[in-house]
Amino acid sequence: MTFEFDPIGVIRTPYTDSAPYQPIADDEGDFRIALDARFAAGLSELDAFRYIYVLYVIDRVAEKPSMTVPIHWAGDKAVGVFASRSPVRPNPIGLSIVQIRQVVGNEIVTSGLDVFDGTPVLDIKPYIDELDAKPDAGFGWLGDLDDREHLLLHIKGVPHPY
Amino acid sequence: MTFEFDPIGVIRTPYTDSAPYQPIADDEGDFRIALDARFAAGLSELDAFRYIYVLYVIDRVAEKPSMTVPIHWAGDKAVGVFASRSPVRPNPIGLSIVQIRQVVGNEIVTSGLDVFDGTPVLDIKPYIDELDAKPDAGFGWLGDLDDREHLLLHIKGVPHPY
Repeated sequence: MTFEFDPIGVIRTPYTDSAPYQPIADDEGDFRIALDARFAAGLSELDAFRYIYVLYVIDRVAEKPSMTVPIHWAGDKAVGVFASRSPVRPNPIGLSIVQIRQVVGNEIVTSGLDVFDGTPVLDIKPYIDELDAKPDAGFGWLGDLDDREHLLLHIKGVPHPY
Repeated sequence: MTFEFDPIGVIRTPYTDSAPYQPIADDEGDFRIALDARFAAGLSELDAFRYIYVLYVIDRVAEKPSMTVPIHWAGDKAVGVFASRSPVRPNPIGLSIVQIRQVVGNEIVTSGLDVFDGTPVLDIKPYIDELDAKPDAGFGWLGDLDDREHLLLHIKGVPHPY
């Protein structure tokens, strides 16, 4: 069985040739989610929230997914694709959490978003404390790695030279 | 432009006729995500995480989405559909966070999941501390409502008689 989804708009970012692995909250530049005009009323009250989930189509990945993913910055440790946030997955649906800066008409101005300019967006959901914030989450297999500081740069997608 | 996605498996829950609005962590019963056998290797290392995101198709909703949603337990306050977690949305993609109890072969045994039995699953992603836990998220428009205790029951999807 196949399900079809039509994007509700596109994501605008400064990234045309390369994009970070995770959202960089304080990245410079213009980040906005531009919904089709007919969805503008669906944004009512959204600016009362601090964060949103953005669901989008990872449409610039041509690679075929495989069941295990080598983590390059962890000595090529192989983990299952569903235990990773790799963009190369059976269903290329991306999920990012970003801060809302402003809602103007049919557009949401956001903090840094880790996607290419023109990425099709499927859904926006409010991120709600208690429901979504899990302070006891831990780091899974990432927590077993040495060098936690370095690890956190990768988790947060912060570019760094080593 | 339309994008097509094929489910990677189905979600098994005790809910055949009605389901809660949000995951109920300690609900009794058997909750599991059964992936197609060919995806079993994709679960390697997943059990090192405490929580996962489950992305699924909300396939039992026939209602047509509208841009504003009346919140019945908040005096029918109308909010934009993208400022709500309503299951009736332009792209009926559901997102739930659940605890992993056990991974056995191609199945993930989880805490309570707020979906009907047989719901098609699209993706599983690990929930990672620092990246996904936002302790400063707040409650958006929900925070403006009176009766916070009552509100939290709704946020958490806990059934209650008042």
